[in-house]
Amino acid sequence: MRVQALRGFRDYLPRDMLAKDRMLKTVCEVFESFGYPPLQTPALEYSEILAGKYGEEGEMLMYRFRDHGDRDVCMRYDLTVPLARVVAEHRDLRMPFRRYQIAPVWRAEKPGKGRFREFMQCDVDLVGIDDAVADAEMILVDCAVLRALGVEGFQVRVNHRGLLRALTEGLELDASEETDFLRLLDKREKIGDDKFRSAVDERFGWSAERWKFVDGFLESAADPRATLASLGELFESREVAGAALERLGKVFDLIDSAGELDNVTVDPTIARGLSYYTGCIYETTLTALPSIGSVMSGGRYDELVGMFSGQPLAAVGISLGVDRLFSALCELGVVQAIETPARVLVVQFDEAGAQDAMRVAAAFRAGGISTLVYPSAVKLKKQYQYANAVGIRFTAVVGKDEATRGTVSLKDMETGEQTELKLEAAVEHLAATP
Amino acid sequence: MRVQALRGFRDYLPRDMLAKDRMLKTVCEVFESFGYPPLQTPALEYSEILAGKYGEEGEMLMYRFRDHGDRDVCMRYDLTVPLARVVAEHRDLRMPFRRYQIAPVWRAEKPGKGRFREFMQCDVDLVGIDDAVADAEMILVDCAVLRALGVEGFQVRVNHRGLLRALTEGLELDASEETDFLRLLDKREKIGDDKFRSAVDERFGWSAERWKFVDGFLESAADPRATLASLGELFESREVAGAALERLGKVFDLIDSAGELDNVTVDPTIARGLSYYTGCIYETTLTALPSIGSVMSGGRYDELVGMFSGQPLAAVGISLGVDRLFSALCELGVVQAIETPARVLVVQFDEAGAQDAMRVAAAFRAGGISTLVYPSAVKLKKQYQYANAVGIRFTAVVGKDEATRGTVSLKDMETGEQTELKLEAAVEHLAATP
Repeated sequence: MRVQALRGFRDYLPRDMLAKDRMLKTVCEVFESFGYPPLQTPALEYSEILAGKYGEEGEMLMYRFRDHGDRDVCMRYDLTVPLARVVAEHRDLRMPFRRYQIAPVWRAEKPGKGRFREFMQCDVDLVGIDDAVADAEMILVDCAVLRALGVEGFQVRVNHRGLLRALTEGLELDASEETDFLRLLDKREKIGDDKFRSAVDERFGWSAERWKFVDGFLESAADPRATLASLGELFESREVAGAALERLGKVFDLIDSAGELDNVTVDPTIARGLSYYTGCIYETTLTALPSIGSVMSGGRYDELVGMFSGQPLAAVGISLGVDRLFSALCELGVVQAIETPARVLVVQFDEAGAQDAMRVAAAFRAGGISTLVYPSAVKLKKQYQYANAVGIRFTAVVGKDEATRGTVSLKDMETGEQTELKLEAAVEHLAATP
Repeated sequence: MRVQALRGFRDYLPRDMLAKDRMLKTVCEVFESFGYPPLQTPALEYSEILAGKYGEEGEMLMYRFRDHGDRDVCMRYDLTVPLARVVAEHRDLRMPFRRYQIAPVWRAEKPGKGRFREFMQCDVDLVGIDDAVADAEMILVDCAVLRALGVEGFQVRVNHRGLLRALTEGLELDASEETDFLRLLDKREKIGDDKFRSAVDERFGWSAERWKFVDGFLESAADPRATLASLGELFESREVAGAALERLGKVFDLIDSAGELDNVTVDPTIARGLSYYTGCIYETTLTALPSIGSVMSGGRYDELVGMFSGQPLAAVGISLGVDRLFSALCELGVVQAIETPARVLVVQFDEAGAQDAMRVAAAFRAGGISTLVYPSAVKLKKQYQYANAVGIRFTAVVGKDEATRGTVSLKDMETGEQTELKLEAAVEHLAATP
């Protein structure tokens, strides 16, 4: 028998899970500070709800089977289609409807480094309003999440689908040319400008005039308002661009008012899944690790959430790449793996001392100190080794003398320093030491 | 197309989910205060890992199918067998190994009131040590969880499998008689003593002498130590009872040292799934709602976690019935449903005022106040109605006058009171009002 996790799946052992869990708690706090409550939907849905929403490739990756009642069911593939189902099913939900959801999704992808068949999605969405305030709010949530997680440098890049449409219209591309061009544009940052140009030349063989138009589009300034102004000149006569630029102008004014302009730029080259988005689009890169790609992305998708009710329903959302960001934060040293939440290990001196250990541990916990009692009176050396191995900073011993004197001997395992303190003083000392 | 959640499954809409989420956060905090870190395991496991562990009935309820690689897989049915798999697979885990896991499990039960095919399990376990300290710790965790959740009256009832074994040995029951008797004993509280006695008489037709022995077993005192003493007399010559009573004696001494004796009793009649447990067993009832049954249960099961490595591995754990307790807390008014985490709604006076709304909202959030901006400049009446409907206590308006004066008009929707305050004073006021 293979005693192992299923191929393509993984355990998060405490060492990683504790840190990841703390990261997610911070993320939830930020979402809630913007007034977003959590939503929970089932892992399984009727296949007819999920089928046909993710393209042919997605369809192939879905875990689909027949349940005990011979119903055709699927494990959820993302959190957006279930949101659309919830909004259509519970018609009494009050609009504008905000929710966040952090939950695993399942895709039978080819397993690879850092790619698993079960992964966490973390989505925040605002449904029922098409307004610059809603678009701007996603950017503010994005910035607040990264700051709360201790990320120093990051850049939110904002685009609008209308600008890309104006560009491809200006270039007079047909549908298949548009797809090819946008795919190359999306790759530009990764492959570099030179390769982008030669690839475009190879496919389209454009005149210098066309390239001039494209160059005007590619030149974005550091100042988002300057970028918007130059795009305004470039697209002077195009209505679709005008509406997009007006919306982006408002969004940047609102971000400015909220004091977040520093981390946000206009980048007309980001494309994301175009078939899906209808308005603003967002991507977020870490200054220290640009190569990992976007850690928080999203946009406005006014045609998806309404799909089950047959009427378009405005929606904007942003999604945090939990596992990608967690790896990045570990790599940057912003997050450290920890094996235990305990800050102090109460050593069991001998079996007769177990009661004293329990008494002291209860006092520590009442003082808000996460406390572990070694659950057996094994050799002291073994108990100290355990504390060191799992990274518990303090150990506490209550021998007969300490018990008589109402004290506890605290040892700082980092410095080796040992002090006998009255119980209350020990609690204070532990609470005061980071 | 049926636009609805899968039969037997349910959504947790924000109104319920927010309160449930807060409950679970408190539970996690308590687990971590005892030094337990979280563990995460996959939703799917190889069927050979899960099969044959839950009896015939359990087997039938498992969601089992073939994945894309034609592997025979199951959705997890509980959190204990995956824990056993983790312990066997990751042999470098340091013992004693503590972990908690809060995660959905799937069972294709017949749906009914309050019974769903996906439900949350919440388990805390200590693996690798058979010691009274570990047994006592579970009781302390149990008490700490309920107290942290604001439950006023509850009773943890503790038994030991050895006492039940001594009883059935004393009654000279064969295996099938033992099963029948323990089933009746387990039901006694629910059906009442009279019905229990007539059912036992019908099945066994015992002599008065046998009944005297059983009566001695059933009489438990309020004081756990008195119960242990009288059981000691009853089982004087039985070794299996002696070891159980010695262990329980230690456990109660330890609980006493930790200051938790008040909520804990010995109840020799609780049986729980006997095939599974090997030592102490726990059940917890709410004084105000005894009829809902046990909200937190568990025990020592020294033969289960080691099943994959072929060697017994000591383990003790306790499990919180999340959905049952959540319903109970709602019924008792300890938990109130809430629809939004927001404490203040910043009203959009008009489109030109959106920037001021964003500025004020940012200041509120920086002050730790969960703040929602109405994302569109619809009629003020509609915005106020929204605040009332979702239960946001305060609204804030920043009109032109307020913007000029650097103030904000705060309205308490409960009292109707309205005050114009400097922005910083408004933050302080919101922070100070519960």
